Amino acid sequence: MTAPTRPAPAIEAVQWFNTETPSTLDALRGRVVVIEAFQMLCPGCVSHGLPQATRIHETFSRDDVFVFGLHSVFEHHEAQGPTSLKAFLHEYRIAFPVAVDAPGEAGGLPVTMTRYGMQGTPTLVLIGRDGHRRAQHFGHVADLRLGAEIMALIAEPARVRPSGNPRV
Amino acid sequence: MTAPTRPAPAIEAVQWFNTETPSTLDALRGRVVVIEAFQMLCPGCVSHGLPQATRIHETFSRDDVFVFGLHSVFEHHEAQGPTSLKAFLHEYRIAFPVAVDAPGEAGGLPVTMTRYGMQGTPTLVLIGRDGHRRAQHFGHVADLRLGAEIMALIAEPARVRPSGNPRV
Amino acid sequence: MTAPTRPAPAIEAVQWFNTETPSTLDALRGRVVVIEAFQMLCPGCVSHGLPQATRIHETFSRDDVFVFGLHSVFEHHEAQGPTSLKAFLHEYRIAFPVAVDAPGEAGGLPVTMTRYGMQGTPTLVLIGRDGHRRAQHFGHVADLRLGAEIMALIAEPARVRPSGNPRV
Amino acid sequence: MTAPTRPAPAIEAVQWFNTETPSTLDALRGRVVVIEAFQMLCPGCVSHGLPQATRIHETFSRDDVFVFGLHSVFEHHEAQGPTSLKAFLHEYRIAFPVAVDAPGEAGGLPVTMTRYGMQGTPTLVLIGRDGHRRAQHFGHVADLRLGAEIMALIAEPARVRPSGNPRV
Repeated sequence: MTAPTRPAPAIEAVQWFNTETPSTLDALRGRVVVIEAFQMLCPGCVSHGLPQATRIHETFSRDDVFVFGLHSVFEHHEAQGPTSLKAFLHEYRIAFPVAVDAPGEAGGLPVTMTRYGMQGTPTLVLIGRDGHRRAQHFGHVADLRLGAEIMALIAEPARVRPSGNPRV
Repeated sequence: MTAPTRPAPAIEAVQWFNTETPSTLDALRGRVVVIEAFQMLCPGCVSHGLPQATRIHETFSRDDVFVFGLHSVFEHHEAQGPTSLKAFLHEYRIAFPVAVDAPGEAGGLPVTMTRYGMQGTPTLVLIGRDGHRRAQHFGHVADLRLGAEIMALIAEPARVRPSGNPRV
Repeated sequence: MTAPTRPAPAIEAVQWFNTETPSTLDALRGRVVVIEAFQMLCPGCVSHGLPQATRIHETFSRDDVFVFGLHSVFEHHEAQGPTSLKAFLHEYRIAFPVAVDAPGEAGGLPVTMTRYGMQGTPTLVLIGRDGHRRAQHFGHVADLRLGAEIMALIAEPARVRPSGNPRV
Repeated sequence: MTAPTRPAPAIEAVQWFNTETPSTLDALRGRVVVIEAFQMLCPGCVSHGLPQATRIHETFSRDDVFVFGLHSVFEHHEAQGPTSLKAFLHEYRIAFPVAVDAPGEAGGLPVTMTRYGMQGTPTLVLIGRDGHRRAQHFGHVADLRLGAEIMALIAEPARVRPSGNPRV
């Protein structure tokens, strides 16, 4: 018996880069969604997480898989603002859309990061065609396993939900 | 329309290492099969092909995916015989089964390598649950893509053939 | 016949990090000096230049070799200011002193970068015990060659100048 | 006070590859000598030791530094004989001379390996212009440090011995 899954929490973005049309998970229903949560001054994000997200972006069909970055800043706020992020995305040639996670109250964790219960960055989230969160990896995950996980979600029919839970 | 696939040619092995029960593709029907064709003195096989095969072996369930090496020697025969291969497998800690491809006539390409039309080593072959050859990669193939290809085959029902060809 | 060398231009720093006592090349005379010119949002600096400078810092005796970073910002000024740099140095655990190159006039190249005629970042400069500039590498330089170049300078007597130029 | 050094033991080779004129340490006196002791089926030799020796061979002037491999087989003798070694050197494009260490008595450690007291492979030995053994590294040694060590020996005058020992 497989553990039941749940609809992925909504993305709360204050700004988007690399796209003219901000995305919502609702609008992406029917495609597999990959969220790469990162901070631009997080070494593991720069060396592993973001290059891996770029590989995903370049490997799969856009009709099947939608990749976007989520800039979830929870430290060094003054050094990782939108102006800094824009320069970073340019220098590192990040080509996929990037959302800026809405700041939390009183300098706490940002809103989307909190909704997903992320422990830090980088965190990679996989959402199925049915809009349910299906996997969440904090830190390094091997390409071979990740490629398999993404394809397992691609292979699912868009309308049949793999969990026994009623759709909310 | 997808190109029709065909049953994978039979493996012609003169010897097996790392297993007490030699495998046949017929006996493996129902599982995805990964063949890593290599030569022990092929630098690309040692640095990329075999480590990748080991990662596949360690990532997927044995019930779903069966990985084996195929030592297809077409040069330096005197340096890559069974005694040498045994030492190589020990030193490089290759844990999956390895078949020795049957020598061709008059020192030509070995039998299985010829049947598969391989251009050299390393070559990675993917066989579906239905026993059909589904992909064949000569040289480097990225882990992300390979993980996806393997999972696409795992996700197929064992008995429904994806091609329009009658099963032979 | 070896090309004559010249005294290295002075460092024009507006701020230092990771040290309480700003350095001058005059005060460092007698030691080999390694300057790693970088920008915090320059991918090649982050992946190669700065890790190499850290290896130099950790490999040689501080009595023989003094390593410091020079943050020579010539683009994305608003994203690479002192506050951002401080966060960067913390996250990337840069342990050697880092000087902030004095801004050029009208947003042009910074002062020290101009004096050294640097073409971009990363640039690594080697200065001999005699205070003369002895090598300047733009982009990647192999560790083996760099280790040899540094040791060649360490092996020189501090007071004998290798060039035929009068000391200024 | 530096520890006294000693003349490097003689090389006992039964065969040479990649050269028409076998070398002796006596004949190489005046140059720095780098010995890369390896076995062709030793994974660490293949992935690190031999590529590093190739980098040394390609980085320094042949007038200053003489690099050669020493095939010191102490296991899997039947798989690492001269015929196998020849194929290996061809496939891995080893360009520097390689000596085959003389077999020890009763299948024990080979002669030169024993004389140098090597613990295993890969082992890298550095010999100064004076013919004295100056460093011996078992396992991994970083390029930066190694480049410095080699240059320190290059910088020494050929005729002045750095040790206080009388030359034997």
